[in-house]
Amino acid sequence: MKQAAPDTTSTGVGLVETHSVTFAHPPDELTLESGRKLGPITLAYETYGRLNREKSNAVLILHALSGDAHAAGYHDPDKDPGWWDVMIGPGRAFDTEKYFIICSNVIGGCKGSTGPSSTNPATGRPYGPDFPIITVADMVNAQSLLIDHLGIEKLLAVAGGSMGGMQALQWAAGHPHRVRAAIPIATALKHSPQQIAFDEVIRQSIMADPDWRKGNYYDHGQPNRGLAVARMIGHITFMSDTSMEEKFSRRLKNGVYGYSFAEDFEVEGYLRYRGDSFVKRFDANSYLYITKAMDYFDLSGGRLIHADREIETRFLVISFKSDWLYPSHQSREIVREIKRGRVDATYCELDSTYGHDAFLLETDAQTGLITHFLDNLGHRHA
Amino acid sequence: MKQAAPDTTSTGVGLVETHSVTFAHPPDELTLESGRKLGPITLAYETYGRLNREKSNAVLILHALSGDAHAAGYHDPDKDPGWWDVMIGPGRAFDTEKYFIICSNVIGGCKGSTGPSSTNPATGRPYGPDFPIITVADMVNAQSLLIDHLGIEKLLAVAGGSMGGMQALQWAAGHPHRVRAAIPIATALKHSPQQIAFDEVIRQSIMADPDWRKGNYYDHGQPNRGLAVARMIGHITFMSDTSMEEKFSRRLKNGVYGYSFAEDFEVEGYLRYRGDSFVKRFDANSYLYITKAMDYFDLSGGRLIHADREIETRFLVISFKSDWLYPSHQSREIVREIKRGRVDATYCELDSTYGHDAFLLETDAQTGLITHFLDNLGHRHA
Repeated sequence: MKQAAPDTTSTGVGLVETHSVTFAHPPDELTLESGRKLGPITLAYETYGRLNREKSNAVLILHALSGDAHAAGYHDPDKDPGWWDVMIGPGRAFDTEKYFIICSNVIGGCKGSTGPSSTNPATGRPYGPDFPIITVADMVNAQSLLIDHLGIEKLLAVAGGSMGGMQALQWAAGHPHRVRAAIPIATALKHSPQQIAFDEVIRQSIMADPDWRKGNYYDHGQPNRGLAVARMIGHITFMSDTSMEEKFSRRLKNGVYGYSFAEDFEVEGYLRYRGDSFVKRFDANSYLYITKAMDYFDLSGGRLIHADREIETRFLVISFKSDWLYPSHQSREIVREIKRGRVDATYCELDSTYGHDAFLLETDAQTGLITHFLDNLGHRHA
Repeated sequence: MKQAAPDTTSTGVGLVETHSVTFAHPPDELTLESGRKLGPITLAYETYGRLNREKSNAVLILHALSGDAHAAGYHDPDKDPGWWDVMIGPGRAFDTEKYFIICSNVIGGCKGSTGPSSTNPATGRPYGPDFPIITVADMVNAQSLLIDHLGIEKLLAVAGGSMGGMQALQWAAGHPHRVRAAIPIATALKHSPQQIAFDEVIRQSIMADPDWRKGNYYDHGQPNRGLAVARMIGHITFMSDTSMEEKFSRRLKNGVYGYSFAEDFEVEGYLRYRGDSFVKRFDANSYLYITKAMDYFDLSGGRLIHADREIETRFLVISFKSDWLYPSHQSREIVREIKRGRVDATYCELDSTYGHDAFLLETDAQTGLITHFLDNLGHRHA
C-alpha cells in the first residue's frame, strides 16, 4: 500500500488548519491540581486522517515545551511544515491512512489554547501573573475535554517526546480507561534536580529582564532579552556535545578571531539567531508556566500504573543515547516502574548523536518502532 | 616527616597576605596576542613556603575562571581559607615544606590584577569596554613577568584545574624552557562548541542586563541580575547530574509545592544563593573577558609540544569521570597531543561524582598522584 502511493507519502497531509473549541458551558471550569479553577478553557487543535466508525483509531500526539497544535502538514502560506510532520502522514509512523491523529496546544501555552497571554474573563485583560500555576495533569485533563468533544471514548494511543512524553505518561496514569497504548519518548517520570536547575535558570533569565514587569508586560512588549537568553540555554541542552561538534566545531564566522565580544564562532551566531527568533513566536510567561509544570511532574513511587488489573495500557518507551537532558536512565526508570506494576513495556534506546532533539530528527528508527507497535495493537484487538 | 607534624599539616599555611607588583618601568607594556598593548600591569599574588637557594623548588598554581591569588591559608579575619587550601600546605599535595608555592590573579580578573575594572591610565577612569581582549597566552606572559620579578628562572611545576589547566598547558607551550613539569587538571586543549556555547550564553546574560550599560557601569553598580543568572548557568555545569541528585534530589523548601514562581525546590534556592553571592565578589566585565580568553584558547594541532627535543616538560594529566563540562575525552586528547610530540605523560581519570567541581573537592586522590609526581621530579633531578 505504501509503495503504491509514493506521492501521497512524500507530500504528507498537505494543507491543514488549526481548529479551536471553547468549553464555556458548565462544567466550564477545570479544577486544577493547585485547587484553583480555570475557565472557560479554549483549546487549539488540529486533526489529520479520518476517525473510523468505531472511533477506535484515534491517536493523540502531545507536544513539547514550545510546541503547538500544528504537528503536521502546512498552513498556507508557510514554508515550514508542522513540528512532527516527518512522523505524521500517509505511510508515516502515525499513518493517516490508518489513524485519526489529534494534536492540541497545551493550556498554559500561547498558540491558541488558554494561557497567561489569554484574556482573563474577570478583568478583560491578559491574565499575566494572575494565570494559575498549571501542571501536566491539568494539561491532560483539559485535553480530555477535547477528546470528549470529538466523541472519542478511548484513544488508541497517546504519544509524544519530552514534555509530550510526560503527557503520554500522565494520560496512562490519570485516564487509564481511555488509553490503550502510550508512547513516551525522550522523557522522564520526574525531573531530576539538574533538569529543575536548567528550568530555574531559564525562568530567572526571563524574570531578571526589567521588561518582564512581574509578568504584566502585554501593553509594553515581551522581555525579549531575557527570553532570548533563556532559549539559548534551552538550545544547548537540546543538542549533544557531538552534534554541536559536527554542526559547528570551532568554525569562525569571519575566519579569524575578532578580538571583541561580537559574534566570533558560528555556534555563537546560531544561538543568538535561535534566541532572537524565539521571542517573535513565544510568550515569555508561557515559558515560565510550562517549565514549572514540567518541574512539578512526578509519577514516580507507584503513581504511573493503575492498581486495577483490568486496565492494561501498553507502553513503548524510547530514548536516545546522546540525550543528556533526558538521559536514558530516566527512560529505564519509566520501564522499571511499568514492570513493577506488572505491565509489559517495550523499551528501545536508539543510537543517535542528535541529543534531545533526536525525537524530532531520528525519523527512520522511530518510524520502524512505532509502526510495528501500533500495528500490533491493531491486530491484537482486531 | 608528615606523620611527625600532624598539627602543622592540619593547620595549613596559616595567615597569609596578598602581595602586589606593578610592572611600570620599560618594558611597561605587554604586547597582547591581539596586537594591542596593555600596561602598566599590576599582578596580585601570594606565596607559601620558601624558595630554596637554587631557586629550583617553585611551583606556580594557576586559578580557574573566578579564582584569585588567594589559593591557601587565611586572610585575617576571613573564616574561609583560599580556594585550593586542601591541596597546599605542610604535608599536602603542594607541600610547603618542600616547595615554594606562587599563585597570582590573572590579568583580566578583578582580584588585584589589571583588568577591566582597573583604572585606565589614559583616562583616569575604569577601563570598562576599552580593556583589550586578552588570551590565556597573555595571562601567562604577564605571569612570566612575576616569575622574573621573583628571580626564578625555571619553575619546578605549573598546576591548575579548568582554566588553570589551560594556563599550565600554555606555560608548557609558550615558555618551555621555564617549566620542568605541568599538571593540567580537568581541562582541554581547546573549548568545544558546547563549552563556547555555555560561555556565550553567560556573556549574553550579562550583556542583556540594561545595567551592564555596554560595560560602562562602574559609576552605577554591577549588572547584578544578568551576572547572577550567568553564574547560575555556570554552577549547573560545575556539578554533575549525580552530585545534584545526592545534594538536592527533589527536596522542597517548604515540603509542598508552592504553586508560585517563588523558590520551591532546594536546588532553586541553592542556585539563587550562588548567583546572588557571586555578584558581590566578582566583576561582570571580568566574567566577559575571561570567558572569551577561554574560548579563544587552542593548543591543538601540534602547538602544545615544542619541537626542540632538548626540552622535555613532564606532564601529569588528571580528569574526573563525572565532569561533563571538561569531559575526560578532552584530557585524553591532551595526552594524545603530548605523545604525538614524543613526550611522556602520566594520565589518570579519577572516579568522582562531583562533576567539574571535583578538582576542588577530590583532595585525597589528587594528593596521591601529585605528591608522587612531584617527588619523582625531585629524585630524577636531585
